[in-house]
Parts: sequence; C-alpha cells; structure tokens
Amino acid sequence: MTDNRLSISIAQINCSVGDLSANTASIIKAIRRAQESVEDIVIFPELALCGYPPEDLLLRKAFLKDCKSKLEEIKLKTKGITAIVGFPELAEDGSIYNSAALLSDGELAGIYRKVELPNYGVFDEKRYFKSGSNPLVFEAAGKRCAVSICEDVWIENSNLDLWVKEHNVDLVFNLSASPFYAGKANQRRGVMQKFAKRNNCFIVHSNLIGAQDELVFCGGSLVCNSKGDIVAAASQFSEEDLVVQIQGDVVSAEIVPPMDYLEEIYQALLIGTKDYVTKNGIKKVVLGLSGGIDSALVLAIAVDAFGSKNVIAVSMPSQYSSDGTKNDAKKMALQLGVKFYELPIIDIFKTTLNVLSEPLGGGQPGVEQENLQARIRGAMLMTLSNKHGWLLLTTGNKSEMAVGYCTLYGDMNGGFAVIKDVPKTLVFELSRYCNKRANKEIIPESIIDRPPSAELRPDQKDEDSLPPYEILDKILEDYVEKDMNPSEIVIDGVEHETIVNMVRLVDRAEFKRFQSPPGVKITPKAFGRDRRMPIHNSYKPS
Amino acid sequence: MTDNRLSISIAQINCSVGDLSANTASIIKAIRRAQESVEDIVIFPELALCGYPPEDLLLRKAFLKDCKSKLEEIKLKTKGITAIVGFPELAEDGSIYNSAALLSDGELAGIYRKVELPNYGVFDEKRYFKSGSNPLVFEAAGKRCAVSICEDVWIENSNLDLWVKEHNVDLVFNLSASPFYAGKANQRRGVMQKFAKRNNCFIVHSNLIGAQDELVFCGGSLVCNSKGDIVAAASQFSEEDLVVQIQGDVVSAEIVPPMDYLEEIYQALLIGTKDYVTKNGIKKVVLGLSGGIDSALVLAIAVDAFGSKNVIAVSMPSQYSSDGTKNDAKKMALQLGVKFYELPIIDIFKTTLNVLSEPLGGGQPGVEQENLQARIRGAMLMTLSNKHGWLLLTTGNKSEMAVGYCTLYGDMNGGFAVIKDVPKTLVFELSRYCNKRANKEIIPESIIDRPPSAELRPDQKDEDSLPPYEILDKILEDYVEKDMNPSEIVIDGVEHETIVNMVRLVDRAEFKRFQSPPGVKITPKAFGRDRRMPIHNSYKPS
Repeated sequence: MTDNRLSISIAQINCSVGDLSANTASIIKAIRRAQESVEDIVIFPELALCGYPPEDLLLRKAFLKDCKSKLEEIKLKTKGITAIVGFPELAEDGSIYNSAALLSDGELAGIYRKVELPNYGVFDEKRYFKSGSNPLVFEAAGKRCAVSICEDVWIENSNLDLWVKEHNVDLVFNLSASPFYAGKANQRRGVMQKFAKRNNCFIVHSNLIGAQDELVFCGGSLVCNSKGDIVAAASQFSEEDLVVQIQGDVVSAEIVPPMDYLEEIYQALLIGTKDYVTKNGIKKVVLGLSGGIDSALVLAIAVDAFGSKNVIAVSMPSQYSSDGTKNDAKKMALQLGVKFYELPIIDIFKTTLNVLSEPLGGGQPGVEQENLQARIRGAMLMTLSNKHGWLLLTTGNKSEMAVGYCTLYGDMNGGFAVIKDVPKTLVFELSRYCNKRANKEIIPESIIDRPPSAELRPDQKDEDSLPPYEILDKILEDYVEKDMNPSEIVIDGVEHETIVNMVRLVDRAEFKRFQSPPGVKITPKAFGRDRRMPIHNSYKPS
Repeated sequence: MTDNRLSISIAQINCSVGDLSANTASIIKAIRRAQESVEDIVIFPELALCGYPPEDLLLRKAFLKDCKSKLEEIKLKTKGITAIVGFPELAEDGSIYNSAALLSDGELAGIYRKVELPNYGVFDEKRYFKSGSNPLVFEAAGKRCAVSICEDVWIENSNLDLWVKEHNVDLVFNLSASPFYAGKANQRRGVMQKFAKRNNCFIVHSNLIGAQDELVFCGGSLVCNSKGDIVAAASQFSEEDLVVQIQGDVVSAEIVPPMDYLEEIYQALLIGTKDYVTKNGIKKVVLGLSGGIDSALVLAIAVDAFGSKNVIAVSMPSQYSSDGTKNDAKKMALQLGVKFYELPIIDIFKTTLNVLSEPLGGGQPGVEQENLQARIRGAMLMTLSNKHGWLLLTTGNKSEMAVGYCTLYGDMNGGFAVIKDVPKTLVFELSRYCNKRANKEIIPESIIDRPPSAELRPDQKDEDSLPPYEILDKILEDYVEKDMNPSEIVIDGVEHETIVNMVRLVDRAEFKRFQSPPGVKITPKAFGRDRRMPIHNSYKPS
C-alpha cells in the first residue's frame, strides 16, 4: 500500500423494491453528499437500484431495461467521484446478472457480476441470475481494489479469494443485502473479519437497511483492516453515510458498537412493521387487543412505529373473557393513548349458531365454536379495516403458528403478522424488555404474569393442550429450525410421546401456515419461503 | 442393434409425497407384475420412492436415510429383472442428488444422478440437489441403454446428448415427474420425439401420475423410436403398466391417443382435487353454492370426484340475491343429489353491523359491507367444516384472483381452490363441456347464460367494474403469463387506460393471493410458487 489517503463513503440506504425513481433519487443524493464529504468512492448496497429482493420482477425484460436507463442517469451524476452501485443487469445474450456498476467521473468504468448465488433459505438467486466469472479490479488512491457482492465473501476458497491473491488486491468492496435474524449481525461481522484476515486485505462492506415483505436488513455496514479488526462500523436499522478515511494502516471513522440481543430483535420488528405498512402507502393500523400478552406486545410495537394517534385497538370480549383480560386491554390502550373500542361478540355468536343450527345438528359444542368466535372477531376487524383503510395487524406468535393453535380466517386475519416468527418464550422476554427500555409500564405487569389462555371456552389454559412453552419452544427449535427427526430430539424430563405429538401438530398445521399473512423474519428459519414444506406430507419419521 | 427382443414395463404410478412405505409397496407390486409380464426392465417415475416434489423434507438427513433403507428393501425384490427407481440420494460427502437406482437381480448395478436441475417456474431443484456428472450406460438384450431424468432430455447439446453419442447408446430411459398445464402433454411428446431424432435412439419415458398440492402429473408415458415416431403411449391421469416389446425396429405396444384440450383440463382439475382431499385423509367436501357459474363448476367437479353423497352444498342468500340464482343453486343441488342447505345471512349481517355501528361511524355503505357478507358466509362454511370434518372447497376463478375481485377471509376461504388457475372464459367453456361430456344437464343452462355478478349490492354486475372477460383474460395472459409490461400489451379495440388499470389491480391484489388456498395449476404460469412477486412492489412500468 502507498501512503495516499483513500476516502470512502458507505451509503447505507433504505431502498424500496421496484421504486426505481425513488431509489435513483436516493442514490444520487448520497452521491452528492459523498462529493462533499469524501474524495474517492461511494459504495451502495446490493441491487440498490431496484431494491432487494426484486423476485419475479426480474423476469420482465421491460423492468430490466428501465433499470438500465436509471443507471445511465446515475452515471451522469458521478463527476469527480467513483460510485459502486448494485443493479440487475440484462446482458446482451439475454442472461441476467446480479451486478455492480463502477461509475467513475461520469463514465461506466466496469461491471462486476456476482459469482456465488445463494439458493437456500429465503434465497432464490439461481432462479434469476447467471454467475459471473470475472474479477473487477481497479486502482484508487494507490490501492488495488476489487468489487464483490454479498455471498462472494462468505465462501472460502472461492474465485474471489483466488482473484485477490492473483491481483494483489489491497481492499475489497462488498455490496450486500443480508437478511436479518437474531445473531446474524454478529455472524456477519465474523465473516467479514475472517475474509480480511485470510486474504490479508481490507474489506469495505455496505449493507442494506430497511424491510421488504418478510425480510429485514439491519445495516451495520463496516470496514475491517487486513488484520481482521473492525475499524469502522455504522449504526443498525437506520440510514447513514459511514465516512471512512484510510491512510496506510490508519483508519479514521466512527465505530458504532453492536446492539444487544433483545434490542436488535425489537428494532427488527419495529422497522419490519413500519416499512411494510408505510411502503404499502398505509397510515393507520388496527388490531384486536385481547388482554393477552401477544396482542399487548404487538400494540406496543405499533405505537412505537406509528404513534398512538395512528393505532386503533379493539377488544371483542365473549362470555368466556375474564374481567382480568378485559380490564387489562382497556388499561393498556388508555395508558398508551390509542383509540379503543370494546365490542362484545356474544350477539353475533348466538345469531350465527342459530342460523347454523340445522346443519350443525346439535351435539356438544367443540372446536367449531371456538373457531367461530375467532372468525367473528376477524370479520369485525376486517370490516373496520375495509371501511377506514386501516391495516389489520395479526398478533399470533411463532409457537402457536407452529402447532396450529390459531384460527384460520380468525385471529390469523391481517395484512401483517408482526410477531409470527417470535416464539412465545421470546414474546415474554420482549414484553419485559419493552417496559425496561421505556423505563415505564408500557405493557401492564398483570398481562405479562397471567397464564396464557385463548379464552374460547370456560377456564381454558394453553397448557391444558400444550406442554409448557419453555419445552414447546425447545422442541420447535430442534424440529423446525434444525430439521431434526423426532427420534433425534432429546429434552431432559420430556417424554418422547410429547415430542412426537408436537411434531405431528406442526406437520398438520402446514395448511394453515400456507394461508398465513407475511411477517418479520427474526429467526434463522421462519415459516414461509424459508421453509418450503409440502402441505400433503405423509412422511412418518422412523 | 441386435435382433434380441427387449421387453419393458413402464410403471406409471401415483406416488404420495413422504409416504415411503406406501410408495415402496406400490413399487414392489409393480416389480412383481413386471416379473410376470416382461423379461427385462421395469422403469418408474422420477423420485418415485419419496413422491414429487418432496421440497424441504430433503433437508432432513433422517428422511434421506429412511429413503435409503426403503431402496434396500426394493433391491431385494428384483430377482430376475432390472428395475430403474427414482430416489433422493444422500451421498457420502453430504451432497444430495436426484437419482435413479439401477437395481438388477437383487443387486445395485449403478446409480445415475440428474444433471440438468430445473430452478424456474414451480421448480426449486437447485435448492436441494447437486448436479450429477457421469453417464450410466448398461446393456440389455443386446442394446446399449442409458438412464436420464426428466429435464436431462429437454436440453439440447447437453452432457446427455454427448454421452449418447460417445457410448453408441441405442435407447435412453427417462424418469420424469413433469408438472401438467394445458398443452404440456403435447409439448412433452414433441420434446421426446425431438430427443429421439437428434440422437438417433429410442427413448422410453416414464411420467408420474397423480397430484401433489398444486401440481398435477398427467402420465402419458411413452416410447419413441429412433426416427421420432411415438410407438407406445400410456393413458393420461390413471395408473398403468405400459408393456413394450422392442425387437429390431419393430415395437409392439398400445398407443393411447392424446386427450382433447378440454378433457385434459377437466381431468387435471378432477385428479388435482381428488388427490389433495383424499391424500390428506378427508372424505367429504362442502362448498358455498351461489347459483353463479364458478361454484356450479366446482360442484360438478366435486360430485365427479367424490360422489354426490360426499358433497354438501350451502346456499347463503342475502337481500341482494336474486330469485334466479337462489333457484338455480337449489335446482342444481337437487339434480345432482347432494345434501343442500339454504341459510340466509341477513340476520347475522344486521347484527354485525349493529355491533360495529360506532366504529363504522355512519356514511354510505361501501365495499366493507360487500366484504362482510362474503366473510359471514366464509365463517359459516368453516364452522360446518370444523364441526363435521368436511374440507371447504373454494370456488373463485383465476380472473378474479388476478384483479382481486374476491374477499380475503370470505369467498377465498377454503382448503383447496379447485379452479383458482382457470380464467373465467375457460370456466364458461368447461361448464358447457361438463354438460356435453355427461350428455345431460349437470350445470343448468340458466347458470351458464346469466351475466356474472357477485350479488353483494343492488343490481351489481361484474362488467360494471371490469372489462368483458374475453378482454380481461387476454390482458391477464399477456401480463401474468408472458411477463409483458402494460406498454407492450396491445389488444384491438381496447384502450390503453383499461390495460393500465387492470395491471394495477393485479399488482395491488398480491397481498390477497399471498394468503390464498392452494389449487390445481393448469396454465403455464399459475399464481403461487410459479410466480413469486413481491407484495410491496412500487414498480411503475415506464
């Protein structure tokens, strides 16, 4: 390396899928800011031009051509600076690449095409993209620089590792859109450090922030020096220009410390919900507030995301609702200052049963009556949603979604399921954390302390039908996230039969999850695109 | 080629995803039958052992090990014959292959690993499988034979084409699970003929029959000679052993002619519905019968699939229902001999509006009241479904699913959406065809002739809000199936504004489709896994 100073801005921006005009404007603004603040380079996240992931929009040639003309616009705005911009590239032979354009002083100086295309978990990149096969190496302030995209730096002994060696690269730029789950930011830091160390070079990693449908991108862009030390780090969950000056081995930049575990999850739920609602052009949200802990946590997040004047809470008690839950719902709504309605369902319930009396044909009331209560509530909330343009937030958690302890077209109704990937034990942790971080009672202690119940029949408790949530969540982690067979799951003090029964419930609820609303992914394996199970599935594990 | 006679059985079987024991039993039975009927070889469909597509079951090591032990069982049953069996292979290095085992006289004689892995449309094979890199060539009755799997023969100038040449192969076995859409069987025959001609060899193609979730496999297994003539062809949509004797250029076998266009679609809807319901262990189905054409067609299919005693039809009229539709619903149910209920929704509707009066806040009744009627009906049907274990069939068509002319948690409720991929114009064609093929009135003519209406407000007609269905369906075909931008869609006599408006409706209904039930794919691009669009999508085509 020479002693020239290299100055870089990492533009950690929030892109909007498909909104080429808004993304282009946001990229051009960041270039302008960089033209003021740094001498050399401004780097953007992966596919910043079209947002990530664009999915089947990529199959439309006209979309790709529109991307190309936007890139031309951006190119003309790079006077005196170099911008590295992620975009989907339609090549002359009709192939599509996940590419980065090197735009320098008004010219296209080169294109890098992503080599390692993830096609696991939530990723479908091989559905769209062809792998690139060439390095892009250039010089800046006397340093030899290479460009890479996301996955390229996650794989050891890849082409990139070879190219860095072959071309004596000093610094690798990495454009990323790395979907969040709890612990991922830490893992990502480790990957970048390892890359820098094994290749004995700097890495400048730019990560997207914001949310798209079920995915959250947490930012936390960073720079590692060639020893693998983190020498610059941006904030998480907010837009930022991270300005970095590199001279020899000395780096001058801010280093924002990583967030705590619960704060990171809380922020992911917050931005995931906020971006989904606002990017879809909606201003207000409504939810059913039962007095239970799940809807309480969702209400707390909604008020934080949209402000109390944009949140409407509806309590819909039945004859099975206790005074405790009814009062707690009202208390919480009043404390937070949200609009609150209490609308008993008993008349609708009775009228419906009356109309259905002949085909129901008597007999003991069963699960159909429990589900009917949930469906009446779901229809009421949707009627308000349709009338006023409020988006209905679904309040179910991951544990109940897993075992099907929820009603399709009832409490599963909604445009966005805020905590669908949050296991029940974590719902408790986050609820306590909500109060702690606010340093006041957001969620009444009585809600947190009450044993969970769906209140759909007299004296019902969740633990009548399910093992304690500490145990259920452990089973679910092994079965859902680790793809273990029941025979491989061993938990102290838990009978094998319990495990087998819970696994069977998970399999049987696949049809419900198929029709569930989207929600924020916060675990390594969320239900949805991350876990593609057949609905009809006759596999009986040995 | 020698003049030895090669005798083959193509076992066109219906496999069940995950049901390793049942599939193994079915494979062993077919081997036994082949031991009686042919001398040499019995060939099965792709992944016959585990069913197709097994999706994320493949990520469970224990599942793959269970498959391996079932393959061992089958191997021992191949005395005096060769069986070519599709199975998912867990290799020693942990890689997974889409493989075919050559089991000969009780021994494993070789394994072929699929090379060309489809990862477009409904396919995710690169999510799971590694590509094979070796041919499997063996001799049978003096002929040099090679094994291939599905996509391998669809690609020109592939490794397989090279291997056939290099090894002077006379005959290629092809194990397939080729998902159906209208016209696919014809296309598939063409692909096989082309393969045979260009490689100057026989092809013996075994295709799966039956349905799994949204996919139907239509059978139609076949043999082409080296000139590309079809010299053997099995039936479509039913299990069959196609026995083929090849001696020199002379082939002795049956040739079942291809089905007509409408019959093929009808059979796909029938087997798709039947397999989904019965493979999930359900015996009876219920549906809302409005007196409109969509629910009439679904009722006709349901009665054909399950028999009239296993189908329950429920008419749920409101104040907006005409006498015509009410009478037609009743008439059709009586004619078909299904259990029929008429349950007016007016009391529930009024009671619900009364409970909601404060938060609804007056004003003109709007779409919220239309949707509420649909949701009351949906909740009633689900209550009956839950009480009696009947699966609720959804009756919406593709055109209304496309533009969102349907109510989430209302008429979209159901376990299976029989005609969700059938455009409205085709609903009319199929309805007329139902009567024609039965040679009697299954669907009353008055239903077919009445202008479509949702009957959710006074004097409502579909064409008040939408262009005529002939035009709408043409727009949808261009936009949805052909991925054209609105500016590229030109239809005689249709204003550009209409096209833009319809495209906007399609984009805006993505959130509804995300929560829609599964249903039979019958077009080249169905909504669902076949078309993976972002829900939040701000793309405004240029």
